[in-house]
Amino acid sequence: MMSLFDTPSPPVTGLTGSPLDRADHIRRDPSAAIAVRSRPDARWLVLDDLKPLLTADPKPELFWAHRSDIPHNAPSVFLGLTPDGAPRFAAAAPAADLIADYGGRLLDARAAAMLLENGRAAILAQARSLLAWHARHGHCSHCGAPTQIAKAGYARTCHACHAEHFPRTDPVVIMLAVHKDHALVGRQPGFPPRLFSALAGFLEPGENIEEAVARELHEEAGIITTDVRYLASQPWPFPSSLMIACFAKAKAAELTLDFDELEEARWVTRAEVLAALGGSGDWLAPPPMAIAHTLLKAWAEAS
Amino acid sequence: MMSLFDTPSPPVTGLTGSPLDRADHIRRDPSAAIAVRSRPDARWLVLDDLKPLLTADPKPELFWAHRSDIPHNAPSVFLGLTPDGAPRFAAAAPAADLIADYGGRLLDARAAAMLLENGRAAILAQARSLLAWHARHGHCSHCGAPTQIAKAGYARTCHACHAEHFPRTDPVVIMLAVHKDHALVGRQPGFPPRLFSALAGFLEPGENIEEAVARELHEEAGIITTDVRYLASQPWPFPSSLMIACFAKAKAAELTLDFDELEEARWVTRAEVLAALGGSGDWLAPPPMAIAHTLLKAWAEAS
Repeated sequence: MMSLFDTPSPPVTGLTGSPLDRADHIRRDPSAAIAVRSRPDARWLVLDDLKPLLTADPKPELFWAHRSDIPHNAPSVFLGLTPDGAPRFAAAAPAADLIADYGGRLLDARAAAMLLENGRAAILAQARSLLAWHARHGHCSHCGAPTQIAKAGYARTCHACHAEHFPRTDPVVIMLAVHKDHALVGRQPGFPPRLFSALAGFLEPGENIEEAVARELHEEAGIITTDVRYLASQPWPFPSSLMIACFAKAKAAELTLDFDELEEARWVTRAEVLAALGGSGDWLAPPPMAIAHTLLKAWAEAS
Repeated sequence: MMSLFDTPSPPVTGLTGSPLDRADHIRRDPSAAIAVRSRPDARWLVLDDLKPLLTADPKPELFWAHRSDIPHNAPSVFLGLTPDGAPRFAAAAPAADLIADYGGRLLDARAAAMLLENGRAAILAQARSLLAWHARHGHCSHCGAPTQIAKAGYARTCHACHAEHFPRTDPVVIMLAVHKDHALVGRQPGFPPRLFSALAGFLEPGENIEEAVARELHEEAGIITTDVRYLASQPWPFPSSLMIACFAKAKAAELTLDFDELEEARWVTRAEVLAALGGSGDWLAPPPMAIAHTLLKAWAEAS
């Protein structure tokens, strides 16, 4: 008999593995949330215009600033506790003075995530998603009044209509359609030259993951799907998605592309995918940080 | 060799299986989106204060109103096309006149979803999620100005700051922790008497599904998780979640409950779960519409 856990574990995905304990009990207790900011071992990750400040090391790391480095009115979110119990935060603040004093550099968040070890990239993902959400939600969507940050950065409250708003995470399905010995990769308009990836799209209200996968493959490529299987997931903080990676069995190989969504799509072999993942193909695969890479690798290495 | 699709299909879940084609090409084309409203076979589902209007039949169905029954200024969303190509919409509008003219009744959306066949409940899920979102997003979260409905109900635009806003769907993990021959069920404060269910919580920015499952089980029940496996997903339009159902292997059976989240939790056997699902246990399981039911059933029937 097959047990529930006899299937393989989901592969490790990029932007996961944060070492921080999110310590929800601190966020929920307003006095604890204030007290933790005053701890001598509290540190802040600084994002200036959503770009993280990294150290100036040859192999850059996240730069952790002291509380005194952070303007008092900067939007600040509690990220969690390190394994040693030290509080970690992120703040949206100008980095020029810090760079002048300590060195370091601002990097595009996506470039930074690619440079960092996975668990550090996961901290950056958490920080950037939350601060990007605060930056776009200064007003109440219900009544229009200004809102205030609450719950250590995990909510905003409206004092006018008493609405409470929570950070949003948008589920996105990303899927590799498979037909016999081929998988489908495509190019969205605006992709870098030669890059092909798995197809993807936002899950919509009133559908589940498998329905969203089938709908997106039909809309974008004219494919009818007979089976869908979940592989793995990852947070994608540009600005705040949950990428849900699946395989889908295609009924036939004929394609009808929606050229608004895909400028090109092609069925590729395992050998082609392995070459692309290794950087030696005639097209480029997404980097290891992206779950599309994980999805392509899992397919290429499966039977 | 095991192929990618040799694992079992995800079980069918409640609130899925809509027969409608969402016809994204119509939403994206403003003139097509207007034209489709004037078709003689166009019909509207009416939600009054988010309660759907059902027919007065002994076995009630969704009531489909004509365009002339819907106030011109009622918020309206395009749901899709029936298999015959007939346009279907949902509108937020008073139902009193319709009830006076045609009969029918307003029902709480959750009660209605339980009465309807699965594919109809899925249409209701789509309609309710979208209209609930519009009802709470009359203003721009960025600048506070009033926003206008766009893309046939799949966006709101702000003419003041030109921000575009899209319906939100909140990923929620719902999981059955398993230890040897037992599974963990719990009671949230406010559950109906005797009801126990799988544990659940919102996925947060910067984590993936498996991390959210592990975090929630640790926060709510003090459980350390060694393995997580995805089972299935469902939309949950109260107001707009994606429920992602997983199994999690618990390292030990000791529990430390967070009494803000759970007033009670217990390890149960397969026989107890089967009795509860069949309505003959000493506790109540969630109804078949809820993915917690699917999760409990899948565990009880597995080895």
